[in-house]
Amino acid sequence: MPCRKLTVIRLNFIQLVQILSCSVGNPQSLGQQPITFFREVLSLCDHPNILDRPQTKELFSADAIERARQILDQLPGRSTGSYSPTQGNKGLRETIAAGIEARDGFPANVNDLFLTDGATPAIHTMLHLLIRSKQDGILVPIPQYPLYSASIALYGGTLVPHYLDEAKGWGLEISDLKKQLDDARSKGITVKTMVVINPGNPTGQVLTEENQKQIVDFCKEEGLVLLADEVYQENVYAPDKKFHSFKKIARSCGYGENDIALVSIHSVSKGYYGECGRRGGYMEVTGFSSEIRKQIYKLVSVNICSSNVNGHIIASLVMNPPKVGDESYETFRAEKDAILSSMTRRAKILEDAFNSLEGVTCNKAEGAMYLFPRINLPNKAIKAAESVSTAPDAFYARRLLEEKGIVVVPGSGFGQVPGTWHIRSTILPPEDKFPAFVDRFTAFHKKFMDEYRD
Amino acid sequence: MPCRKLTVIRLNFIQLVQILSCSVGNPQSLGQQPITFFREVLSLCDHPNILDRPQTKELFSADAIERARQILDQLPGRSTGSYSPTQGNKGLRETIAAGIEARDGFPANVNDLFLTDGATPAIHTMLHLLIRSKQDGILVPIPQYPLYSASIALYGGTLVPHYLDEAKGWGLEISDLKKQLDDARSKGITVKTMVVINPGNPTGQVLTEENQKQIVDFCKEEGLVLLADEVYQENVYAPDKKFHSFKKIARSCGYGENDIALVSIHSVSKGYYGECGRRGGYMEVTGFSSEIRKQIYKLVSVNICSSNVNGHIIASLVMNPPKVGDESYETFRAEKDAILSSMTRRAKILEDAFNSLEGVTCNKAEGAMYLFPRINLPNKAIKAAESVSTAPDAFYARRLLEEKGIVVVPGSGFGQVPGTWHIRSTILPPEDKFPAFVDRFTAFHKKFMDEYRD
Repeated sequence: MPCRKLTVIRLNFIQLVQILSCSVGNPQSLGQQPITFFREVLSLCDHPNILDRPQTKELFSADAIERARQILDQLPGRSTGSYSPTQGNKGLRETIAAGIEARDGFPANVNDLFLTDGATPAIHTMLHLLIRSKQDGILVPIPQYPLYSASIALYGGTLVPHYLDEAKGWGLEISDLKKQLDDARSKGITVKTMVVINPGNPTGQVLTEENQKQIVDFCKEEGLVLLADEVYQENVYAPDKKFHSFKKIARSCGYGENDIALVSIHSVSKGYYGECGRRGGYMEVTGFSSEIRKQIYKLVSVNICSSNVNGHIIASLVMNPPKVGDESYETFRAEKDAILSSMTRRAKILEDAFNSLEGVTCNKAEGAMYLFPRINLPNKAIKAAESVSTAPDAFYARRLLEEKGIVVVPGSGFGQVPGTWHIRSTILPPEDKFPAFVDRFTAFHKKFMDEYRD
Repeated sequence: MPCRKLTVIRLNFIQLVQILSCSVGNPQSLGQQPITFFREVLSLCDHPNILDRPQTKELFSADAIERARQILDQLPGRSTGSYSPTQGNKGLRETIAAGIEARDGFPANVNDLFLTDGATPAIHTMLHLLIRSKQDGILVPIPQYPLYSASIALYGGTLVPHYLDEAKGWGLEISDLKKQLDDARSKGITVKTMVVINPGNPTGQVLTEENQKQIVDFCKEEGLVLLADEVYQENVYAPDKKFHSFKKIARSCGYGENDIALVSIHSVSKGYYGECGRRGGYMEVTGFSSEIRKQIYKLVSVNICSSNVNGHIIASLVMNPPKVGDESYETFRAEKDAILSSMTRRAKILEDAFNSLEGVTCNKAEGAMYLFPRINLPNKAIKAAESVSTAPDAFYARRLLEEKGIVVVPGSGFGQVPGTWHIRSTILPPEDKFPAFVDRFTAFHKKFMDEYRD
C-alpha cells in the first residue's frame, strides 16, 4: 500500500517525538478494542475442546458458546483447519445472505456470495477478470483509494478518471461522468466498469440516495458493471445521511438480475469492528451471465485458493451480530455505540480543526474513517518542494512527520485536481490523545505557514 | 483447484454410499484433530481478555498462555486485528528465522521472510514476477501440482515440462532436465525458473541429498531461480529418507547469496498439523538483486495486501513448537507422533494394496500425503472412455466415485507420460476406516477389470 511508504522515511529530527500513524485505517493498532462477542466466538471456534468444560461458561457468554457450536457444525470435520469451498462454506454464506436481506429489504442469494480475505482479493479478482488489455478502461473516482490505480496498472488496463466535486461535498456529477466516458470511448477505450466507493475513501462523503439512483441509471444505460466498494457501510457520522447499498438502490429502482451487473464488496476491516488483520470479507455478485459467473468462479479457484476460514466466520458475525434478548446484546450494543459515537466526535473535532487553519478547507466528515482537507499551499512552499523534487503535499506531509511525528498521506497518492493539494488523515487516534494530536497538528501548520507564507 | 471438480459430478448411482474424499490434502476435514498447543495459542491470541482470569489456567496450558502473551506483545496494539506489515510482523519472522536455522544449521535472515496466506499466494507472487510474456518459461516437473500450470497460464508464461522417472521412484534425471531446457531455449523461450516440489506432489517421492545437489548445481550453472515447494517437509515416511531444504543443500555446497537465487515455500496446511483453512505460511527469498527484491516487495504490497495475522501466528508456532521441558511438550509430542506414525502406516497399507491389484504398480510412499499409482488400463476401458469423450483415467476415477463413493484425482490433472494412466489418492481417510476404504477400492478395481479386461 503506497500509503505505508511514508513510515520508512528516515526520521532524523524526531527521535524524541512519539510517531502517531494517521495514514492507515487500522483502528486496533491505535488501541481500539475488538468487539468482545466476535472475539469470543473466534476463540471458541479455534479451540473447540473447551466448549464443554464448566470453566468455559464462566469465561464466555452463553450466546457466543452457542454461536461457536452452530458455526462448527457447518464446517467440514467441524474444524476451522479444513479448506473451505471456493465460495466459502454454505452455512456461513447463508448467514451473510440473511444479513444482507435484513439490511436491504431485498433478497440475497447464497450462490451470489464469494467469501474473501477482506476486500482486496475481491477487487483484484474483478479487475483481473474485467481487464483484457490496455484498451479496457475502468471508470474510477478521483481522489481514489490507490488499490484501484495499482491493480489496474498491474492487470494492464486503463484508468479512466472522473473527478469528484470538492465544492459540492465530493459529490459525483453525472454530466462529468458522461463526459469522461465519452472522451475515453472516443479514444478507442472500451469502458466496461465503474468503481464507486461509498462512503468515500479518501474523501469521507456519503452519497445521497438521489445521487446513487443517478449512478445506477447511468450504469444501466451505458452497460457498465458497477463495482461498489461498500466497506465503510457502518461508518456514517452525518445525522442526515444513511448508507444504502447499491443493490438496494438498483432493486428499488425496479432493476433486476437482467438489468444491471453489480458487485458489492464488504470487509471486516472497517466499520465499528476494525478487524484488519483477520482478513475477512465477501463480494456479492449479481447480474452477470452464467458464462462470466463461471469465469469468476474459475479465477477465484486459481487465484485465491480457499481464503481463511476465520475471516469467513467473522464476516458472518458482522452480518449477524447479537440481537435483542441475547446474553451478549447489551455489551455488544454498548461497545458498538461507544466506538461509533467516539468516531463521530473525533471526525467533527478534526473537521473543525482543519477548517480553523489558515488556508485549509475541509468538507464535512460524513462517513468512512478519513478527512481529506485541501491545503492552499503558499507559492514559497511549492517552490521549496520543487527544489527537492517532491510533490508539494508530500513536502508538507513529510515536514509534519519530521517535526511532529504525525503520519498522513499526501493527496497526490490518491489523485486530485491538478494544482490543488490535500492530505488524508484518519480520525483514529484514541479520543484521550485527540486534543494533543490536534494541538500538534495546529502548531505545525502555523509554523509551516509562518515559514512559507507568501 | 482442478482436483475439486470431481466432487461436483452428479452422483446418480451412489446416494446410498458415503462419499470418501481422497482427492484433496485436507486432513482435518476427514477428522484429523488439530495440535492442541497450536489451537490454545490461537484461541488466546483471539481473545486476550481472558489471559488473566483464573479459569484460563485450568483450561489452557501454562506455556500456551505464556506464548500467547509473547506473541501479543509483538503485534501493533497487541491485537490480531491490526494490519501486519507487508512482510509480516518482525517478531513472528524472527521466530520463523530461528526455526529455519535450527532445522538447517545455516543462518536465516528475518528480512528474507515474507509471511503469506499459505503457499498459494507465494507461488502466485513469484510466478507473476518471473513471467513477462509467453517467451518466459518455467521448468516444471511432470506430474505436477496443477497450481503451477494454472498460474503459469494465468500470467501468460510457458510451462516447460520435464518428466519425473517413474521407473526410478519418480527421480529427477539431470540429463533429461538439460535436454528439456536446451530444447525450450532453441525455440526462443527464456527459461528463468525451475520448480521443484519436495517431498513430491502428486508423486510422494523424497529426493536424495545427492539428487538435490545435482539440481542446485544445475540451477547455478544455468542461472535458474530455484523455486522450492517444501510444504511437505514434515511428511517423510521412508526410514532411509530425510528432508533437506534446498537452501541447506545450497549452503552446504558452499553457494552463498551471490551464487544462486532460491525461494523456499512453506505452509501450515500440510505436515502433521494440516491447518489448511487457516491460510498460513511463508516464503524465504534469497540470492536476488536488491532491485528484484524491491519488485517482490512491491508486488506483495499490491497483490496480497497484508495477509491474515492468525495464519502468521500459526506459521511461527509450526517453526517453534513446544520444547522438552515445556508443559505442553509431552502432549504435543504424542499428538505429532500419533499423526505421523499413522500416516506412515496408512501410506504403506495403500501402497501394498495398489501393488496387489491387477495391472497396477505403485512407487514407494516416501513422503507427502499422496500415492500416484499407475493403472494399466485395458484397451476396452480406453475405448469405453473415448466413446464418452473422457480421458481414460478420468473415466476410471468417475466409475470409482459412482460405484464406491471414493473421490480421487485422475493423473491427467497433473500431467503424465502420454499413454500412461494414473490416479492420485491421499492417504488421509482415518485409520479406523482405512481397511473398509481399501476393501471398497479393491472390490471396485476387480469389478472394473472383470468388465473391461481385454
